[in-house]
Amino acid sequence: MARSRQIIFCRWHGGEVVDSENAGGDDGDEVVQICLCRARERLEIDIMKNKFSRAVSVCATACVFTIAAGCQTRVHGPAPAASPAKPAGPDGPAPTPASSTAPAQTNQPPADAKPASSNVPGAQYPRIDSGRRAYFRIVAPNATNISVTLAGGRGIKGDDGVWTIVTSPLAPGFHYYSIVVDGASVADPASESYFGTGKMSSAIEVPSPGEDFYLPKDVPHGDIRARYYPAKSTGQTRRCFVYTPPDYDTNLTARYPVLYLQHGMGEDARGWSTQGRAGFILDNLIAEGKARPMLVVMDDGGITPGSMGGPRGTGGRFWDKFTQALIEDIIPMIDSTYRTMPDRDHRAMAGLSLGGTQTWGITQSHLDQFASIGSFSAPFGFPEIPGGFNGLLGDPAAFARRVNVLFVGVGSAEGGMANSSRAFHQALEKAGIRHVYYESPGTAHEWQTWRRSLHEFAPLLFQTAPGGNL
Amino acid sequence: MARSRQIIFCRWHGGEVVDSENAGGDDGDEVVQICLCRARERLEIDIMKNKFSRAVSVCATACVFTIAAGCQTRVHGPAPAASPAKPAGPDGPAPTPASSTAPAQTNQPPADAKPASSNVPGAQYPRIDSGRRAYFRIVAPNATNISVTLAGGRGIKGDDGVWTIVTSPLAPGFHYYSIVVDGASVADPASESYFGTGKMSSAIEVPSPGEDFYLPKDVPHGDIRARYYPAKSTGQTRRCFVYTPPDYDTNLTARYPVLYLQHGMGEDARGWSTQGRAGFILDNLIAEGKARPMLVVMDDGGITPGSMGGPRGTGGRFWDKFTQALIEDIIPMIDSTYRTMPDRDHRAMAGLSLGGTQTWGITQSHLDQFASIGSFSAPFGFPEIPGGFNGLLGDPAAFARRVNVLFVGVGSAEGGMANSSRAFHQALEKAGIRHVYYESPGTAHEWQTWRRSLHEFAPLLFQTAPGGNL
Repeated sequence: MARSRQIIFCRWHGGEVVDSENAGGDDGDEVVQICLCRARERLEIDIMKNKFSRAVSVCATACVFTIAAGCQTRVHGPAPAASPAKPAGPDGPAPTPASSTAPAQTNQPPADAKPASSNVPGAQYPRIDSGRRAYFRIVAPNATNISVTLAGGRGIKGDDGVWTIVTSPLAPGFHYYSIVVDGASVADPASESYFGTGKMSSAIEVPSPGEDFYLPKDVPHGDIRARYYPAKSTGQTRRCFVYTPPDYDTNLTARYPVLYLQHGMGEDARGWSTQGRAGFILDNLIAEGKARPMLVVMDDGGITPGSMGGPRGTGGRFWDKFTQALIEDIIPMIDSTYRTMPDRDHRAMAGLSLGGTQTWGITQSHLDQFASIGSFSAPFGFPEIPGGFNGLLGDPAAFARRVNVLFVGVGSAEGGMANSSRAFHQALEKAGIRHVYYESPGTAHEWQTWRRSLHEFAPLLFQTAPGGNL
Repeated sequence: MARSRQIIFCRWHGGEVVDSENAGGDDGDEVVQICLCRARERLEIDIMKNKFSRAVSVCATACVFTIAAGCQTRVHGPAPAASPAKPAGPDGPAPTPASSTAPAQTNQPPADAKPASSNVPGAQYPRIDSGRRAYFRIVAPNATNISVTLAGGRGIKGDDGVWTIVTSPLAPGFHYYSIVVDGASVADPASESYFGTGKMSSAIEVPSPGEDFYLPKDVPHGDIRARYYPAKSTGQTRRCFVYTPPDYDTNLTARYPVLYLQHGMGEDARGWSTQGRAGFILDNLIAEGKARPMLVVMDDGGITPGSMGGPRGTGGRFWDKFTQALIEDIIPMIDSTYRTMPDRDHRAMAGLSLGGTQTWGITQSHLDQFASIGSFSAPFGFPEIPGGFNGLLGDPAAFARRVNVLFVGVGSAEGGMANSSRAFHQALEKAGIRHVYYESPGTAHEWQTWRRSLHEFAPLLFQTAPGGNL
């Protein structure tokens, strides 16, 4: 079968021929090797303008497209005579691909805007300016309406089919968002995706001036381990994540206390290590001598079949069966796999939102297993006073003997949830129950509240302190 | 500020009131707590029909929406009089949310279609039938054209604004895809996302009949560890993933050989452990006694600043600086952090596509560091015969003394790349160079080829065998 030889140039490599190994496949298709390091935007424009129509059958690993015989296969023109604009360094201005020089664009970011740290490698958008406005750039020539689900995020379409969007100033911290394209709510391929809001959500990290306790620093780092284990309670292979502190692999005779740390509704076992940056928070606290080296176990508070997802179990609330999984499978597995201190004084449980509600339920019914308790933004499920904890909340002295740490955290901007947390705190005070109450200034029901809550909570754990049992 | 009290019902909990804690926030907004375990689809329809217009300002953790004062805030009607349809068990039929009972839908999956294992928890779509067709269901009432980038993936719009799509029969294995909504190429929030094709891509896992070497089994599992480390060569904190075998944490005096395993272009350090399932492949081989327990180190073959992405470095090809990072930072860090056997006989390098090209380049220039070499679908960069490896490819006996394993793998359906790999294999044969050639039957330039290549390659490593040096 006769086919013309394709020579593919990459504009971003100065016209370098990246590959010309494109003899036809067995099925009469051509295999074209292209460079996508910077060509992706242009290629996508071509695809979306349907130059290939249905020709692009499989996009494999970013560098190979199979294009049906007879279809248009020229991705780029010949190498430009003049050297193309080179992208600048990481901190320099954004590269100016040919497609962005089209006229009549609006919502352009100012010069001080930088790619968000939550972008995928190489993505120049979204960008954030010094006023904490986020700028998006989406190629969608045929769309009639595009927005992002962040404050002010309406799109404006340029003559070149590129939509630009600018948001209102955003609060510092981590915000989930979706792109809504003509009514379809979808994830942004230029941002990292996270399992949150019950789906793969995009999110943008907005810097918080003067706050770096959750950022990676030049300190000893622990590992975040993905651990797969068979769970008798569900009959499935489950996955959890385990933070082991920096000295775990060198101090081979040491044993460690364990914090079981749960995510919120619509999230899963990945939440605390990715969205929450729990590993960096612990690394930094341990390096400063502010927290005791500990393991942190982050499991899936819903009951999911298998390691790769699938439908959640049904019957009752999907998270109720987690109690059995935690007590019968997870804790014994952790204590037999890792060098733990397997007693209640060296075991804590905490969680955010739904995970906090689970913490209240599980620690009340299993106080033989946990001596320290943290609730972050858990607006329903507060224990009764004085009846909670099997009546211990009516006996402050007995409660103090039995519970080493009781921590209640919330964001001051959480509205009704902040009000109810504050009321619970005041009721604990009135009842004489020893506890720590923390209100994160100005943050809502979002990860910045929970990062800060963990940062306040972890130093309290497993310490020998006045009134403590250790 | 006067606001009406909102009582929110969840249809999937039989009308249960999930929360009524919705006193107003400090800014006059209302905070509404809803249940999204099953309500998400309906809520999204409402959002996308613009019932809330700009009212939904922040979608936090799947259960909290902040809705501006004065806007429509009723998400659901009152609890239905009759009990709603309950979702069936994981293996039963899909639940029938109210919105899917609309008339005139097409592309409906047959009864044997099951949610893909690559779906996020709880997602009923995409589904795959026994003929390996994939079915998608996308809510996009205002879109005029929707497709998925898989063979045959054209969308048909139903009267209820829900698009249904069915693909042609797909090859077994792992396929990246995007959804194209009116020209915007975006990720599917119902599937897991992976960094591939240079962005956060969706992917669908199509079962491969009779092939389970890459699936989680009831065998001892190793850990996949995310490790952060300072890299002098880049001045940044980098992240790699390290597979430690099942006995690593119990056999505390043992030392292990190390395989450095690289991803392809457009992917990053996550590729082999998520898309490639390298951990399960090693777990299963080790459990069967077919591979020696080893560490597998998976790093980012591009040079990215920081752990969370951002723009890639520039100047030359973005992957060239990886050589320095590997030799000067990564190998010393691994050998000082983990219990390795830090010599060339116990160190291998392999990679797929771009990673294979890097493997050829790095092992030729650093044969003092590696004694075993694997190239999976690396179509350009084959060493010259006889000049390659500093002339060793012209001296079969010397090559065999110096290189314990040389492995060349490719998929038989890779077209020109299969042809060039086969030609290189034949040239090696003719030159008398000891090597292993593997052609994955019927697979293209995709992960099923590379999973199989790793499964063939790993058992060859670090063995005492005729002609081997160990």
